Amino acid sequence: MNSQTPDKFTIINELARRRGFFWPSYEIYGGVSGFITYGPLGARLKQNIERKIRELYVHKLGIMEIESPIIAPEKVFEASGHIEHFKEPMVECQNCKRKFRADHLLTETAKITQTEGEKLSLKELKNIIKNEKIVCPECGGGLSEPKHLLTMFKTTIGPYSDAVGYARPEAAQGIFVEFKRLYEMAREKLPFGVIQIGHALRNEISPRQGLVRLREFTIGDLEFFFDPEEPNCYLLKDFENETLQLVLADDRLKGSEKLTKVTVKGALEKGYIKAEWQAVFMAISKRLLMALGVPAEKQRFIEKLPWERAHYSAQTFDQEVLVERWGWIEVTATAHRTDYDLKRHAEFSGQDMYVFKEYEKPLEKEQIIIKPLMEKLGPKFKKETAKIAEMLSKADPKEVEVSLKEKGYFMLGKYKISPEDLEIRHEKIMERGRRFIPHVIEPTFGSDRLLYVTFEYAYRVKDGRIVMSFPRDIAPIQVGVYPLVSKDGLPEKAMELYKFLVNEGLVVEYDEAGSIGRRYARADEIGVPLGITVDYQTLDDNTVTIRDRDSWKQVRSKIEDLPECLHRYFRYKIEFEDLGEPITA
Amino acid sequence: MNSQTPDKFTIINELARRRGFFWPSYEIYGGVSGFITYGPLGARLKQNIERKIRELYVHKLGIMEIESPIIAPEKVFEASGHIEHFKEPMVECQNCKRKFRADHLLTETAKITQTEGEKLSLKELKNIIKNEKIVCPECGGGLSEPKHLLTMFKTTIGPYSDAVGYARPEAAQGIFVEFKRLYEMAREKLPFGVIQIGHALRNEISPRQGLVRLREFTIGDLEFFFDPEEPNCYLLKDFENETLQLVLADDRLKGSEKLTKVTVKGALEKGYIKAEWQAVFMAISKRLLMALGVPAEKQRFIEKLPWERAHYSAQTFDQEVLVERWGWIEVTATAHRTDYDLKRHAEFSGQDMYVFKEYEKPLEKEQIIIKPLMEKLGPKFKKETAKIAEMLSKADPKEVEVSLKEKGYFMLGKYKISPEDLEIRHEKIMERGRRFIPHVIEPTFGSDRLLYVTFEYAYRVKDGRIVMSFPRDIAPIQVGVYPLVSKDGLPEKAMELYKFLVNEGLVVEYDEAGSIGRRYARADEIGVPLGITVDYQTLDDNTVTIRDRDSWKQVRSKIEDLPECLHRYFRYKIEFEDLGEPITA
Repeated sequence: MNSQTPDKFTIINELARRRGFFWPSYEIYGGVSGFITYGPLGARLKQNIERKIRELYVHKLGIMEIESPIIAPEKVFEASGHIEHFKEPMVECQNCKRKFRADHLLTETAKITQTEGEKLSLKELKNIIKNEKIVCPECGGGLSEPKHLLTMFKTTIGPYSDAVGYARPEAAQGIFVEFKRLYEMAREKLPFGVIQIGHALRNEISPRQGLVRLREFTIGDLEFFFDPEEPNCYLLKDFENETLQLVLADDRLKGSEKLTKVTVKGALEKGYIKAEWQAVFMAISKRLLMALGVPAEKQRFIEKLPWERAHYSAQTFDQEVLVERWGWIEVTATAHRTDYDLKRHAEFSGQDMYVFKEYEKPLEKEQIIIKPLMEKLGPKFKKETAKIAEMLSKADPKEVEVSLKEKGYFMLGKYKISPEDLEIRHEKIMERGRRFIPHVIEPTFGSDRLLYVTFEYAYRVKDGRIVMSFPRDIAPIQVGVYPLVSKDGLPEKAMELYKFLVNEGLVVEYDEAGSIGRRYARADEIGVPLGITVDYQTLDDNTVTIRDRDSWKQVRSKIEDLPECLHRYFRYKIEFEDLGEPITA
Repeated sequence: MNSQTPDKFTIINELARRRGFFWPSYEIYGGVSGFITYGPLGARLKQNIERKIRELYVHKLGIMEIESPIIAPEKVFEASGHIEHFKEPMVECQNCKRKFRADHLLTETAKITQTEGEKLSLKELKNIIKNEKIVCPECGGGLSEPKHLLTMFKTTIGPYSDAVGYARPEAAQGIFVEFKRLYEMAREKLPFGVIQIGHALRNEISPRQGLVRLREFTIGDLEFFFDPEEPNCYLLKDFENETLQLVLADDRLKGSEKLTKVTVKGALEKGYIKAEWQAVFMAISKRLLMALGVPAEKQRFIEKLPWERAHYSAQTFDQEVLVERWGWIEVTATAHRTDYDLKRHAEFSGQDMYVFKEYEKPLEKEQIIIKPLMEKLGPKFKKETAKIAEMLSKADPKEVEVSLKEKGYFMLGKYKISPEDLEIRHEKIMERGRRFIPHVIEPTFGSDRLLYVTFEYAYRVKDGRIVMSFPRDIAPIQVGVYPLVSKDGLPEKAMELYKFLVNEGLVVEYDEAGSIGRRYARADEIGVPLGITVDYQTLDDNTVTIRDRDSWKQVRSKIEDLPECLHRYFRYKIEFEDLGEPITA
């Protein structure tokens, strides 16, 4: 369209489409915005990113993973608050009937920031549209009054049209509704965490940013349940010195996006982050992004303002990554959900969501017991005696005792109670433990956005060619195997090596088309970390050359040593130079 | 409820629920039939089964894997034929308003087999209900006329209520709509295959069989594209001697379910299986099921009858496994989809789905060219000359030539054409290749049913205790680590070992609660193949005991040897006895 250098977003999307990482779905039918299809390389890259999440949380921290359905009955989302809150303001053009997200329209056409836009009520949106004379950006037509649209996909379950169901907009509720069962699986001990990684859907009004805003996407929701009276995190010592770059709500309220660089420990001491588990999960998210190739200085944690937070959250930090076209975009978030969800599900389902925690030794407590003396009350209150006795049983005994002692009487509503009307006893009881609803810290991950930033940060240009420097353990293909030339038995030898490596569990590509230089270039473009070339010397001594994608250096190695060496290399136990003898050109 | 021994279905579901493999979703809201939630052990078992599918097809055969959305626009399912065909007959009780699948109701109440039921038209169903006086099984009320219900979940995409979308009932269409792009990724060479494993939804009228019939489930669809003129399978030699147990359509039509035991080669020679690729994929499915622990004799391939086949299929074999409660249940299917889907998408989208195959050398072909001679036609046909020239250009040149030669004239509609009206030339042309739409063999897998049969065939009882003998490479937990007793530094040593093994990439559980015997029993019940116990001797010489889940035998091994040995054991490179020195009691 124009002669400027295309930006990274454009280059990445072109490369992704051409080499089969991802592309917009249903293009043969004109496309449907907000849906993406991952091709062979993209699907594997995405799986590797999700494996990385599992490695960090499921395998290393012992978080349990579950898989629940995408469709849930309406009741679940009534309880979760989504039916009430999961809405976007929409306006419709009265001429061309196109629909727009009202606040986004104002940030594009009126001088309103996104933060301001999200705060506006329907009435305020209406007034701005009227006063600023905002019209349809497509045809110039007048706009309807803004109204709220529920952004969940609605359907019906089974043959009954009143059995309404929704596609989940997050994976969290599938965990909350099973809390009691999961608590049993954690052997009824807090804290414990449960993660779910799967598809989720949000029926956005007009998504238009590729992988960054999808209607169907993959989310990872981790719900970490803990006792609010024992909020200390046993992992703190491993993470307390990790530095976080925070943008605090207080600064944002003053209009500043100042970076506060502070350690996990410092952030907790200064009260920037309220819960220890939240701070630690933020530090782990930082390490996750670094493992995906995003340097620390390109990440920040931005504290959400009260009106930006989800309806359930007490404190939320979005982890953002700087990308060329869109600026800072959210890739993960860590929210303090308190006991909101479990409480709501308890309320809506009538099921008990409390846990019981036994004290190390029973606690001796004094209990005040009030016994109404009917023989005294009767003559005084006649017909109302029973009612008054009932009311007394519900009164706070402590309050009754204090009032009688200090004032000589106690006002029970309009009735005056005297000391002789009742008996007060103090009893010792043993309290075995405490019942409470756990609190929740929720780290949440967007797989598609993680993939996008992984892509953007892997992108390099070397000698005018694209090299996708994916971290070696998430590259979709680990090793390329190439015969130097397509004759003299080299293809057969290379194919034999290919099969040998596949059988050893490596992800390998075989390529014999075109010159060796072209094949290296093709492999660099899709980020294959190592290229193994079978040449004439291989036929003599069973050695091959190994080429490094990033430095283009080469070493020579014995075929028999490859499986062990390569596995160690991809687990970051050894470096490229350790793979064989250096070759000097 | 009764005093009979519970069947395996009951035992498995109880175990699955109690130990956190799977259970019905949304129980706190009274449950919604047809939805299941996989707990920590089930989710991992399911992932391992899916990894096994990937190992066999993606890694070993080089099948490409993609991931596409679950929601698709209506057009996709109009093209695929689902809107027209994906229906079930339903009747409603006119009294209690409950709804039933009509044919299932008849198999339960009238003397109709499932096969017969599936053949019945709405009218036939109506007549049987009337003649046999079938009533509502719940309340005895009269039944409505049967009608067809579309069993896909319907929704709308975006803010426009006319943008209808459906949740996919299979994962195949996400591959077909991207065929052209995927063909490019296969470097424009046939044959090639693409697989997708993901959630799919079928809005069943009344699902009631646990994992066996779900509304939301995981499907693996593999579409293998080949040239129908080159249907030979290059893998045939590796599989030709694999024996298959077939139930042939011809026998079924005679009312017999006779097993025909035949090799892949024999089945092809006898014409039981029409396409080589179909036979080979059936053999691979057999090996998959064996790898999941289902013996060959408990598997059979049942050929679908014409009216049982999906609307697109030329030949289909369901792979069935014998289970205790339900008899033979389908777990995979291999269908010959011909060029149905690509043709339909070409038609509905207007996009070209042809591939071009160049001949090894261009083919010389003779072409007959008809040239109307306007100077002859003009005087004869006057105003109609142009029309007649146009009609001639569309006539079959061969037919024209033969007619002129044999009869001396050619009837072009009502016009009589004489030899002098035109010129016939024979030209040699070189045909470079052939354009055609590839044919498709589709192996399809139901993850949930595969998990169910894996469960049922892993189930053993030993000394009155349940032992889940999952094949070692798909067991959800690989190794249990136990301190012999909870004191004297053994828990610390065991925890150190636990962390060491986790870091080496093994899936490990740590357990110190209760006696060692109880811990072994708990681990056997969830199918942990190996138990490693840290005892007093460990503190001296860094050796541990390893216990085999199935034989309960033990060996003693050095901790430092464990990672290498265990990895080899789980890859079936060595056996239990190779893990250490035998311990004799």
